[in-house]
Amino acid sequence: MSKFLSQRHSTLKAYVPGEQPADMQYIKLNTNESPYPPPHSVISSVTADEIEKLRLYPNPDGTMLIKKIAENYGIHPENIIIGNGSDELLAFAFLAFCDAERSVAFPDITYGFYPVYAELYGIPYEQIPLRDDFSVDISDYIDAGRNIVLANPNAPTGIALTLSEIELIAQSNPEYIVLIDEAYIDFGAQSAIPLTQEYDNLIVLHTYSKSRSMAGARMAYAIGSAPLIEDMNTMKYSFNPYNVNRLTQTMSLAALNEEAYFNEKRREIIETRQYTVSQLKELGFTMTDSKANFIFARHPKFSGASLYMQLKEKGILVRQWNKPRISDYIRVTIGTPAQMDAFLNTISEILEGK
Amino acid sequence: MSKFLSQRHSTLKAYVPGEQPADMQYIKLNTNESPYPPPHSVISSVTADEIEKLRLYPNPDGTMLIKKIAENYGIHPENIIIGNGSDELLAFAFLAFCDAERSVAFPDITYGFYPVYAELYGIPYEQIPLRDDFSVDISDYIDAGRNIVLANPNAPTGIALTLSEIELIAQSNPEYIVLIDEAYIDFGAQSAIPLTQEYDNLIVLHTYSKSRSMAGARMAYAIGSAPLIEDMNTMKYSFNPYNVNRLTQTMSLAALNEEAYFNEKRREIIETRQYTVSQLKELGFTMTDSKANFIFARHPKFSGASLYMQLKEKGILVRQWNKPRISDYIRVTIGTPAQMDAFLNTISEILEGK
Repeated sequence: MSKFLSQRHSTLKAYVPGEQPADMQYIKLNTNESPYPPPHSVISSVTADEIEKLRLYPNPDGTMLIKKIAENYGIHPENIIIGNGSDELLAFAFLAFCDAERSVAFPDITYGFYPVYAELYGIPYEQIPLRDDFSVDISDYIDAGRNIVLANPNAPTGIALTLSEIELIAQSNPEYIVLIDEAYIDFGAQSAIPLTQEYDNLIVLHTYSKSRSMAGARMAYAIGSAPLIEDMNTMKYSFNPYNVNRLTQTMSLAALNEEAYFNEKRREIIETRQYTVSQLKELGFTMTDSKANFIFARHPKFSGASLYMQLKEKGILVRQWNKPRISDYIRVTIGTPAQMDAFLNTISEILEGK
Repeated sequence: MSKFLSQRHSTLKAYVPGEQPADMQYIKLNTNESPYPPPHSVISSVTADEIEKLRLYPNPDGTMLIKKIAENYGIHPENIIIGNGSDELLAFAFLAFCDAERSVAFPDITYGFYPVYAELYGIPYEQIPLRDDFSVDISDYIDAGRNIVLANPNAPTGIALTLSEIELIAQSNPEYIVLIDEAYIDFGAQSAIPLTQEYDNLIVLHTYSKSRSMAGARMAYAIGSAPLIEDMNTMKYSFNPYNVNRLTQTMSLAALNEEAYFNEKRREIIETRQYTVSQLKELGFTMTDSKANFIFARHPKFSGASLYMQLKEKGILVRQWNKPRISDYIRVTIGTPAQMDAFLNTISEILEGK
């Protein structure tokens, strides 16, 4: 820390992302990326001509991309903003809608970045404990009297809320925003995007980093009422108007024509998840009911830290947090069937003390 | 504006970037892009294999890229942070180092985004008038008692400070940061990067958007003392750790081996600027002494708005601001010699009333 840092930030602890090793020596099951590459049309959309055009700024509004996303959902372009990954859009939402008077609530166990945004901007926040089984008690969020951020499915638990539960929350908080972070929505839960047409306080966030196989391209979008999106654009245009680069816009547009490919890959990941869950159960693990592209698992005889370390030594990266309530768990991204077999074999070896 | 927007932002006016028309019907001399494409090695660095790897997150630290930048300058990796364009790094710097107690000063005529960052974060700021000839009076910044942000060369004037002037400013403000935004440094001014080794309060910002022909890729870096860069990283990791996408990191690394290409293009742009300046003088224009890849010009008989409008009607985009002191000027990006001849011919027609 320098002596020049604002006092405001003197206790700020930045988010720590999962390890991103530069080499490929690990089977990487730690940051919920897709094990499948983007489809061919996305790859071929990056022509030499498109790269030459990098001398020019991107379209800051993402006009063509937003138009096509709007068409796909049957909504209007003014209901959509694009971002440099969902982290950036979350940052815009916290900055736009929260302050000392308009605080924010989210679960105690959820995406670890939410409290960081609140700390960054000096926003009071409440971390509402999940039930013992890690499910959200939605009564905690009815008439909450503050802004609400919920990941659905939640991370790292993978547990999903129903659409009617989300509707009740949005309905009962008409004076506050309800932000649903649907990073993992494509793996078994139901999107709240249709509800954004009815509830002017609802924002839904989607990312290309998981089901769309484009974590490295940085692309996400938020959907909500036109005034909410206008406010988020005010943040974007006061922060970084050219936030989504040219090639990412080009590739993301191509990806919108690849529903069949992505549906097939989603189906494969869900099947692989089911297979992995059943195998881990046989090995004595207990798990949450994950609707995401990861599983959250514990074993009665091994701590989470021990499993994480032993897996890493054997060449497999998973994620584990030394935090209350969840330190016994590991979060394991669903890879290809072959990767999961390697994971399961390694776990068996660890359990057998090999 | 929605009813949910924080009161803090009720008067915030976002930055308005230059027009980025989706089609190519204009000769585009309005946002200071390079008229030359990135070199072949940058284009060929984007292989199908690299695009397939987009399923994976980028390296958040930009390790390889930062290592190579450090080698080129003979500095250490901990002196460098990369960003999604310089706008993002500016946003991090304002957020990190400025607050109600540590205000900021910059010229009244400079990059229009600086006051927007200050407004966004509620930071008091002073806009110090340039001299009548648009030069910076550095005595205004000696012992300023606040943080200082200066574009060098300044925009939209193109006028440069000397290295010894910047040193005096850094030296006389040891308790505050001095941020030098060198977006246009490669077109005739001298970089303050060597001074960052001596002054722990100095931050220098470089972008790939101008001389590096990669505005569409979004890449910039800041150089400063290790504690300053650590603080900016605290902002980055509390906002968007994966801020520079994979392909941009790959291409930016390739670009670092292309000094000869970029030097040649810089030389061409400087020559084209000199030619354009001499031609405009013959047409009765007066101009600042621009060391940037644009010129800032006025004509005694035409308002800036009139020139802007007439040029646009004739297919040429330049930039003009309806702001005090500069509304009579147009800012014209230096394009290829052919583009500048088209511009000069069109200007001649306008002056002749055609």
